Amino acid sequence: MANWKLTLEYDGRRFSGWQRQLGARTVQEELEGALARVFGVPRVITHAAGRTDAGVHALGQVVSFRAEPERDPLKLTYALNSLLPEDVACRVAERAEDRFHARFGAVDKTYRYVVLDRVSRSPFLAGRAWHSRHPLDWAAVEAGLEGLRGTHDFSAFRGPGCEQRNPVRTITRAEHHARGEEHHLEFDGPGFLKYQVRIMVGTLLECGLARRDPAAIPALLAGRDRTLAGRTASPAGLYLVEVRYGPTPAATDELEG
Amino acid sequence: MANWKLTLEYDGRRFSGWQRQLGARTVQEELEGALARVFGVPRVITHAAGRTDAGVHALGQVVSFRAEPERDPLKLTYALNSLLPEDVACRVAERAEDRFHARFGAVDKTYRYVVLDRVSRSPFLAGRAWHSRHPLDWAAVEAGLEGLRGTHDFSAFRGPGCEQRNPVRTITRAEHHARGEEHHLEFDGPGFLKYQVRIMVGTLLECGLARRDPAAIPALLAGRDRTLAGRTASPAGLYLVEVRYGPTPAATDELEG
Repeated sequence: MANWKLTLEYDGRRFSGWQRQLGARTVQEELEGALARVFGVPRVITHAAGRTDAGVHALGQVVSFRAEPERDPLKLTYALNSLLPEDVACRVAERAEDRFHARFGAVDKTYRYVVLDRVSRSPFLAGRAWHSRHPLDWAAVEAGLEGLRGTHDFSAFRGPGCEQRNPVRTITRAEHHARGEEHHLEFDGPGFLKYQVRIMVGTLLECGLARRDPAAIPALLAGRDRTLAGRTASPAGLYLVEVRYGPTPAATDELEG
Repeated sequence: MANWKLTLEYDGRRFSGWQRQLGARTVQEELEGALARVFGVPRVITHAAGRTDAGVHALGQVVSFRAEPERDPLKLTYALNSLLPEDVACRVAERAEDRFHARFGAVDKTYRYVVLDRVSRSPFLAGRAWHSRHPLDWAAVEAGLEGLRGTHDFSAFRGPGCEQRNPVRTITRAEHHARGEEHHLEFDGPGFLKYQVRIMVGTLLECGLARRDPAAIPALLAGRDRTLAGRTASPAGLYLVEVRYGPTPAATDELEG
């Protein structure tokens, strides 16, 4: 059966996250339903690079699945976008080499957290950003970011019920970009613990609100105590931006066949 | 009674436009309801700079009204944003000098039309942009824009039921700005006819799709025939961005009292 790679965008507001679950509206269920219709089969099983939580958005979620019969990639994109609900879209559909797996093959991901720093909330960013009506000290946030870069035991930044045995993770990039009143905190890394980005952001925003000293973040990491880190930031501001794949690329000629 | 100036943002998708009308959800009705609650009066009457149509958005709609008792401007902003529905927000509330009138005092406005030029639609711009899945020739659109700049009889670009006696309008700025896949067409002018921006955009997009020669726009203006111009573009892409006021500023010290 042909192996496929999809790049998806979705607005997470009305989804209970990526992963299929009984009695809840999920991206996986909507996508698998649309794929089953396009391929004319009872069920298509998909694997996503990041199993985003309820309310979290995606600009570049990557999904793989196997299906037959053969389909033209551009026509598949059009068909999915006509079948999928308004809050999810297929950016790109492409054939992947046989070994490609969206989740196990992912080498590196980018997450972005969007903060709106102004007096009034925005009708256009409702459910799509964290709004602070108190001005944030972005220099303090950037000082905090510095302490998170690199390889650390992130036990202080993992959510309850995190099933990962090893709490050590590496953050290869942690940056702040201002776009007017909209501020982006971006994190690259090969993997993240449950709620890790949202707890890091919650902690950083407390630095920005002068409720926490950014210089204390290394000690916070060393202490490994979740109760001493900041609150978990709302899922509304979080976006899975990009997923990168390694030396076994998704679809290069020399690897196919 | 104190005179006030508000700057509003709204997502027009679920509104039947600015203007209050029976049995329809309008921005004016939501705003006047919130203002009446804040000031503790039965009714507050508002005047908007631009009476935006159903589905049209605003980033900088300006509204004036008179009310008492006195209120602190920042507290009024907070109060309105807690009372108004999610799809409308007050950016700024400020005291205006007594002669200020949002509609009659407006000297110049900026409208923006947002076009998404890519294969797939966007979950984040659903109802907030015009999506062309066929690539547009933006050089042709820019050539068309040139023909619209300046003072012309815009009879070919006015909607049915337009009540303006004089069809002559001046466009002081008509520009195209690309922001990745998102393209903005911006128009400045002291006044616009009914549907004028949307008909101009519909016509320009036909140039971009190679269905119309941008060099023919001057002849189109000269012909004054609405049936020869392009289709009225969807309200989804249209934003009232800014309203400017003239030599009698809204709230300067020397004019107050």
